[in-house]
Amino acid sequence: MDEGVMGVLKELLEQNDSKIILLVADGLGGLPMTPGGPTELEAAHTPCLDALATISSLGLLEPVGPGITPGSGPAHLALFGYDPFRYNIGRGVLEGLGIDFQLTPRDVAARFNFATVDHSGRLVDRRAGRISTEENERRVKKLRAGITPPKGIEIFIETVKEHRGLVVLRGDGLCGEIHDTDPQGLGVPALPARAVDSKAEKTAAIVNTLISQAASILKDEEKGNMILLRGFAKHEPLPTMRERYGVHAFAIAQYPMYRGLARLVGMTVAPHTASTDEDIRMLTGNFPQYDFFYLHFKKTDSRGEDGDFAAKVAAIEELDKMIPEILQLKPSVFALTADHSTPCALAMHSWHPVPLLLHSPFCRLSGAKRFSERNCAGGPLGLRPSVHLLPILLAHARKLMKFGA
Amino acid sequence: MDEGVMGVLKELLEQNDSKIILLVADGLGGLPMTPGGPTELEAAHTPCLDALATISSLGLLEPVGPGITPGSGPAHLALFGYDPFRYNIGRGVLEGLGIDFQLTPRDVAARFNFATVDHSGRLVDRRAGRISTEENERRVKKLRAGITPPKGIEIFIETVKEHRGLVVLRGDGLCGEIHDTDPQGLGVPALPARAVDSKAEKTAAIVNTLISQAASILKDEEKGNMILLRGFAKHEPLPTMRERYGVHAFAIAQYPMYRGLARLVGMTVAPHTASTDEDIRMLTGNFPQYDFFYLHFKKTDSRGEDGDFAAKVAAIEELDKMIPEILQLKPSVFALTADHSTPCALAMHSWHPVPLLLHSPFCRLSGAKRFSERNCAGGPLGLRPSVHLLPILLAHARKLMKFGA
Repeated sequence: MDEGVMGVLKELLEQNDSKIILLVADGLGGLPMTPGGPTELEAAHTPCLDALATISSLGLLEPVGPGITPGSGPAHLALFGYDPFRYNIGRGVLEGLGIDFQLTPRDVAARFNFATVDHSGRLVDRRAGRISTEENERRVKKLRAGITPPKGIEIFIETVKEHRGLVVLRGDGLCGEIHDTDPQGLGVPALPARAVDSKAEKTAAIVNTLISQAASILKDEEKGNMILLRGFAKHEPLPTMRERYGVHAFAIAQYPMYRGLARLVGMTVAPHTASTDEDIRMLTGNFPQYDFFYLHFKKTDSRGEDGDFAAKVAAIEELDKMIPEILQLKPSVFALTADHSTPCALAMHSWHPVPLLLHSPFCRLSGAKRFSERNCAGGPLGLRPSVHLLPILLAHARKLMKFGA
Repeated sequence: MDEGVMGVLKELLEQNDSKIILLVADGLGGLPMTPGGPTELEAAHTPCLDALATISSLGLLEPVGPGITPGSGPAHLALFGYDPFRYNIGRGVLEGLGIDFQLTPRDVAARFNFATVDHSGRLVDRRAGRISTEENERRVKKLRAGITPPKGIEIFIETVKEHRGLVVLRGDGLCGEIHDTDPQGLGVPALPARAVDSKAEKTAAIVNTLISQAASILKDEEKGNMILLRGFAKHEPLPTMRERYGVHAFAIAQYPMYRGLARLVGMTVAPHTASTDEDIRMLTGNFPQYDFFYLHFKKTDSRGEDGDFAAKVAAIEELDKMIPEILQLKPSVFALTADHSTPCALAMHSWHPVPLLLHSPFCRLSGAKRFSERNCAGGPLGLRPSVHLLPILLAHARKLMKFGA
């Protein structure tokens, strides 16, 4: 969505009491397992969604761009109404969001791998034999105890999983414009941190001191005696959804990445819940206080990543059962869509557009009797970028005035 | 496709062995001859395409923009993944490509007409009574013999057809920012060449000397005693498909314009062939060496331009027969589409979106039983700009990595 539209939208925002619920079924979009077969959504028994589809508008959203398989970060930002190219969140920052690390605007974050080097410092394994998370945690403890940050700088070292971790530098005047230190090959030493831009030279020097301290602290480890850093990024706070779209947004999501993304756009994030029933209770309890609700359903993506068609079908059927209780809240606008597709046939995220169902009193119908990718294609909402969704939700909630006379 | 998408795409390119075949049936899109009647594609008997359509994704591509009837140049560039506005190839350069003139980056090309002026230099016929190609060639010989280019400049004068020709200036520091000399009316003299920009003043002066020499050389001709120049353009080499999209592309096309366009984006162009059977053999023979294949089928456009509905239907049926042999090569991705529509009802290019069929193991189906404009509308690929096609082909060929985490 270009900034022309955004500039105009801000002028058209209007407050009212109407409430929008956006249910994101992560990775919902699918594919047939064999040519001509059904997708996961087509194979699932979804009486509630199907009944809703007959009185809703359907369409397809393209998450980020043609042919582009998005990560959860850009895909969610698009659904929240943020152009994912303009607001391209660095990998280090996304990793921080993913482990619930509370980043501040003074932070530069980077992902790291434990790696193994030989006695002369040459890389023999860029992932340290994929050491266990416990082994990672033991090394992280040693690093935390041994590293001395320069004056005015704090250094945080965090385990992510297996050989992966997160480094955060906190201080004034730091800059994330630093090249990866991973040389992407073996038999050569790790690269020093080099500034992309002269503004980053001070930060690069701090990183290089950190790396040499880490190498010294880890030198007795047989595996994982070095760290490789990549995806350096400064944490740049985003304009909030309140500022951009005038909504008070509330997020119900369990995984750190989605909680972090919601926080990044200024949503209030609900405490953790343990089931979809609790999610619904959380939604119900907070329904009076907010006017935009983001509810994240993860299983569709997880089962898609597993490549387990039957399990993804079952997850969709579980999703279907949530619908009546959500609708009992009588939101002005209810939308169900996905951040991206995760077809079992690929067992990973894909570039395929995602199905969209939008229900409000102001819907055009397609005559479809089922909620499926096929029926969404050619639906009244068309095929459009995901970033278009938010203004359409606002319009159906009557939160946008007329443009021009 | 904005440059945000392009910038990201470059970072996502991944090499693999998968192969993409893009079959462009020139002018394939059609219209009913009478309201409610079938289009050419709907009237044709296309068992191979119909069978393929049941296991493929369908959609519509808009070549250049809403309502815009494109020439072959911009329409093909869009299919090759080049924004046709950003890469707006000048008319003079396109004319050069169209007659297989090998342009270099030091060239400024312009189209010209032989025109007729009276004794006082006023235009009486802007097309010299549409003199024959032979008469054109006779005048071109005289011009070549008589014109003296300034030091350091070469001048090429080429017959195109009937009253039309091509002038190419070759030298250092030339600039194509020059207004047309055709005043677009009679009873007035030809305009002098005027620089749009001061950088073009030297070039404009060379053109004016050329024009006065030409007028002097042609003064005894009863018709075609003057030349009018238009569409001045510097030949600017384009970034190659290899640079932009990481593919080694091979082109099979017979007409100079398409060969020239393919060369312009860095494709290797096959030697001429004499039949579609030879095209298939050329494709088969080169299949191991490249990973992107552009195959051009011209007859659908030619018969459309003739306004001959039955002949265009027959051309489509000939196209249909090529499909099984192409699929025997087992490309990872096969796409059939058109550069633009050429409906017999109009007997010319039109602005209508073109049908698109995309076959890969990762296709969503529309449930269509036939390949037709009607079934492409509302298909899973939606209606989108032609320039979106290339990234989608790369995605289906698994040549694009994930964007963001």
